[in-house]
Amino acid sequence: MAKHGQAYGTGGESGGENKLVERIARHFGKRAAGFVSLGMGDDAALVRPAPGNDIILTCDWFLEGTHFLRDRHPAEAVGWKCLARAVSDVAAMGGVPRCFLLSLALPEPLTGSWLDAFLRGLRRAARRFRCELAGGDTTSRREVLINITVAGEVRRGRASRRSGARPGDILYVSGRLGEAELGLKLLREGNAERPGQPALLRLADAARPGQLARLARRDMHVKKHLYPEPRLALGRWLREKRLPTAMMDLSDGLSSDLPRMCDASGVGALIDAARLPLPRVHEQEQKRGLDALQLALHGGDDYELLFAVSQRNASRVPASLAGLRITPIGKIVKARQVHLLDRAGRTSVLHAAGWDPFSRA
Amino acid sequence: MAKHGQAYGTGGESGGENKLVERIARHFGKRAAGFVSLGMGDDAALVRPAPGNDIILTCDWFLEGTHFLRDRHPAEAVGWKCLARAVSDVAAMGGVPRCFLLSLALPEPLTGSWLDAFLRGLRRAARRFRCELAGGDTTSRREVLINITVAGEVRRGRASRRSGARPGDILYVSGRLGEAELGLKLLREGNAERPGQPALLRLADAARPGQLARLARRDMHVKKHLYPEPRLALGRWLREKRLPTAMMDLSDGLSSDLPRMCDASGVGALIDAARLPLPRVHEQEQKRGLDALQLALHGGDDYELLFAVSQRNASRVPASLAGLRITPIGKIVKARQVHLLDRAGRTSVLHAAGWDPFSRA
Repeated sequence: MAKHGQAYGTGGESGGENKLVERIARHFGKRAAGFVSLGMGDDAALVRPAPGNDIILTCDWFLEGTHFLRDRHPAEAVGWKCLARAVSDVAAMGGVPRCFLLSLALPEPLTGSWLDAFLRGLRRAARRFRCELAGGDTTSRREVLINITVAGEVRRGRASRRSGARPGDILYVSGRLGEAELGLKLLREGNAERPGQPALLRLADAARPGQLARLARRDMHVKKHLYPEPRLALGRWLREKRLPTAMMDLSDGLSSDLPRMCDASGVGALIDAARLPLPRVHEQEQKRGLDALQLALHGGDDYELLFAVSQRNASRVPASLAGLRITPIGKIVKARQVHLLDRAGRTSVLHAAGWDPFSRA
Repeated sequence: MAKHGQAYGTGGESGGENKLVERIARHFGKRAAGFVSLGMGDDAALVRPAPGNDIILTCDWFLEGTHFLRDRHPAEAVGWKCLARAVSDVAAMGGVPRCFLLSLALPEPLTGSWLDAFLRGLRRAARRFRCELAGGDTTSRREVLINITVAGEVRRGRASRRSGARPGDILYVSGRLGEAELGLKLLREGNAERPGQPALLRLADAARPGQLARLARRDMHVKKHLYPEPRLALGRWLREKRLPTAMMDLSDGLSSDLPRMCDASGVGALIDAARLPLPRVHEQEQKRGLDALQLALHGGDDYELLFAVSQRNASRVPASLAGLRITPIGKIVKARQVHLLDRAGRTSVLHAAGWDPFSRA
C-alpha cells in the first residue's frame, strides 16, 4: 500500500483511481433517474423498487484467462458479455433488469483505448437491456478482472425459481444449444477453414479489436459467443403467463445446469437426444471432431432459457416467441437422475460435462 | 473451457463448483427469512425492502496481493474484512445492512482448511453486522479474488450523501485515524521490537493462521487492520438525528477521501493538524520513521466516518457515542482546495497521498 503525492485542486488532479472513475462516468453519465435515485460518485447507490415488487440481485465473475482471452476477445465484446451474463440471471427469474454495479480491475496500460472499447460495449449492452450503471469499484491489477452485480425487479412472490419442477412436467429450451461453444472453438482455432468466414477467422489472430468486433457479427456462432442475448422477453412472458414450474438460464451447459434444476426441485429428467435443437456443424468441422450433439449437451455460454411446464399447460407454450424458437426436449421424472434417450432408443445416465472452473484441463 | 466427466446422481457427485457452493451453504445455511426471500442456490437472490425504504447497493474488491497478503493475513481476517469494508459503505449512508453476495475465486488447494477459516471469519462478520449471505458466484483461480456486494436499507430519501457539505460546516471524524495503517506496517515488518507484543509479531511470520488470528486481537492496531469495525451505530444515529450535511467512510485515507467529499459538495476544507485524533506511535517506531501525523493524514483502511455538520447543529454532536470518540478536525470552506493548518500556524495544500491502486510503488 504505497503512497503517491498528487495535488488536490478543483478536479482533474487527483489520483489514478479517480481518473478511471471519471472516464467511466464520461461514458455513462452520473445522472440518476427512476429506479436509481443515487448513482455513481457516492459511497453506495440508492435504488427504489416500485411498491409491491421484489428486488432480484445477482453477481457474476468475468475474468481474463478464465472467462475470456484478451488476445481473442475484443474489448467491446468483453464489455457486452460481462453484463449480458449477469442480466441473463434476471431473465431466468422472469424479471426486468434495472441497474448494475461494475467492479473493474485492470492494468494501467489498458486504461486508454482498451478501456474505451470495453466501456462502449458495456454501454451498448446497458442500453439494449435497459440496465443503468449505478456504481462500482475500481482497482489496478496485472490482469483484467470484472465482477458485475445486477439488480432487477419482479412482481412480489412471482419470480420463476429452479425449485418447482414436478414429475411429468415437459422440459423446454429456447434457441439452439451449443452454438456459443462452437463459436468459441472457431474463435480459438482462428483458422480459415470455415466456408464463407475466412476473413473473420484470419482476423481473429491479427485484427484490431474494432475490426474484429465488426466482422464477428457476421458469423452467427462467433457472434453468439461474443455477444450473447439474454432471453429477457421470453423469461418475462413465461413468468407473466405463469407457465414455468421451474426456470433457469443455461450458462455452463445443459448437462451441468439441468442437474442443478433437478437438485433444487428434488426430481430427475429424461432428455430426448432426437429433439435437441442442435447447432449447424459444417462437414469440415465434423471432420475435425466437432459433434453437434456433444456441443448441445455440454457446450456453455448459450444463455438460453431452460424451463419446465406442467403437462396441463404444455399446449399454451408456443413453438416460438418473437422469432425465438422454443423446443420441448424431454420431461421431468421422479427418479433423481438425468438420463439421455439416444437416437437408437437406448437410455444412459447423462454425465455433467459442461463448464466447471475447478475441472479445467 | 475444458470438460470433465462426472456422474450426476442424488447430490454430492457433481462438479467442483457445486461442491464449493455446498461448502459455503454448510457454513451459512440456505434458509431465507425477512429481507431475503430467496437465498443461495437459484439464478439470483430475491430481497424485499420494507415499504417506504430505499435499497443501498455497494460492492468492493478484496484481492490477494492488492488488498491483502496471503502469508500475512489470516484467512479468518480475510473473511471478516472483505465484508466489513463493504458494510462500511452502508454505515456511511446511515443505513442498515441486510444481505450480501459473495463472489469468490480461489486456487483448488485452498478449498479445504483455508476456505473453512475464511468462511468462519466471514460468518462471524455477517452475524456481527446482521448481514445475511444471499448468493454469489464462485470460480477457480491462481490467486484469491473476492468481490462483495452488500444490500442495505434506509428510510426513503434520508440516506446521508457526500454532496451536501456547505462552507462553514464543521468536519468530524470518529475514532482515531492512522491506526489501521500502523497495524499494517507492524504486520508487514513482522519483527519483535514493539514493547509488549513480541509474541504476536514473531508469530506473524510463523504462526498457524488460527493462532495468529487469536493473538492479533491482543494488539489494538493489528486488530484494527485485520478486523475493522464499520461504524454502523454511529452512522445510523447521525442520520436519524439528521445531523450530517455530508458523510462518507474513510477507506483510502483522509487526504484522499476528504477531497472526494469536497468535490461532490463543490467546496473545500481546512484541517487543523493539532486537532486530529492521532494513533499512539511508540518511541521505537518513531525512530524507524513512523510519524503519527502522516499516518493520520494518509493512512488507509480505518473505516472511520468523516462527516460535516452545520455550525448551528454542532452543539448537538456529542464528544463520543457508545465509547467511540467523535472529534472536530476542521471546517468546510468555499475555496475548492483542501488545506492543512500545522501546529506552527502555517497553512499548506494537503496533497492526496492515501491509498491509490494506480500509484503503487
